[in-house]
Amino acid sequence: MTIRWLTEKEQRAWRAYIAATHLLEDAIDRQLQQDAGMPHLYYSILANLSEAPERSLRMTDLAEKTKITRSRLTYAVTRLEKDGLIRREDCQWDKRSSFATLTDEGMAVLERTAPGHVETVRSLLFDRLTPRQVEQLEEIFSGIAEAMEGDDERPASDDVPWRRRSSGPCS
Amino acid sequence: MTIRWLTEKEQRAWRAYIAATHLLEDAIDRQLQQDAGMPHLYYSILANLSEAPERSLRMTDLAEKTKITRSRLTYAVTRLEKDGLIRREDCQWDKRSSFATLTDEGMAVLERTAPGHVETVRSLLFDRLTPRQVEQLEEIFSGIAEAMEGDDERPASDDVPWRRRSSGPCS
Repeated sequence: MTIRWLTEKEQRAWRAYIAATHLLEDAIDRQLQQDAGMPHLYYSILANLSEAPERSLRMTDLAEKTKITRSRLTYAVTRLEKDGLIRREDCQWDKRSSFATLTDEGMAVLERTAPGHVETVRSLLFDRLTPRQVEQLEEIFSGIAEAMEGDDERPASDDVPWRRRSSGPCS
Repeated sequence: MTIRWLTEKEQRAWRAYIAATHLLEDAIDRQLQQDAGMPHLYYSILANLSEAPERSLRMTDLAEKTKITRSRLTYAVTRLEKDGLIRREDCQWDKRSSFATLTDEGMAVLERTAPGHVETVRSLLFDRLTPRQVEQLEEIFSGIAEAMEGDDERPASDDVPWRRRSSGPCS
């Protein structure tokens, strides 16, 4: 096999992307830990529920929306349920069809936390991009995400996190 | 305070970026777990050492290169040392000046693993980008990273992970 090493340009782009992504995620996690006592992933779970009809989603759909494995979601939801921010309702006929619902307290935490979170994302990312770069960002990453998730004609493979049965030691 | 909510376009860009980044990181972690029994971060530690003079870096510099806290790096290096891939040499006069050095076994693991890793990065990311998009990716994220890290005139704040003394529960 001929190894298709990255070109100089690709290496620079890859390193810049990885560096910025680690720094962004770190800054966002810290802001949310400070303001709401939770990491970014947990905030995203609440945010996704807040936009769903009746603030409720099937656990499998919530895993897909947050791009994580079901086991990782279960872990997060258990903690959020303990804090009273989510209510979980198991379907008695089908374990896999259990629902997570945002509680009023969860909605209140979200509403209180959202302004600071959005300000962080804006000041670290969008304030530093031109309108054209915002479009480029969307074009680049929606293409990548769609290719990995599949679409109606070519459904997502079993390899995406939310379809995986068991997860590795890091999930 | 007037909240500067994200526009529709910014929201779409943000969500696409977060989704693709989670999926990419998940796929890269799985490939590396399968091929080398380690997550992406550990691979990056080995890769950074392999490029350093005498394959050795001060722990503080290694934390900066991998954009993580010193405590998180210490945890990873301890595990890599246990596996014989890194050798750690503490400076007897200054604990903070300890060095990590890639062992021959670490270099061998890296050389064996690199082709599969690069192929994953290429097939999931670069094969789906035009040459112009590779440039855009670099422009966007090098700007973000540099702004967060500071530069010669405006040094990095104490807020970047590798300068932080203690770290939160998730680091």
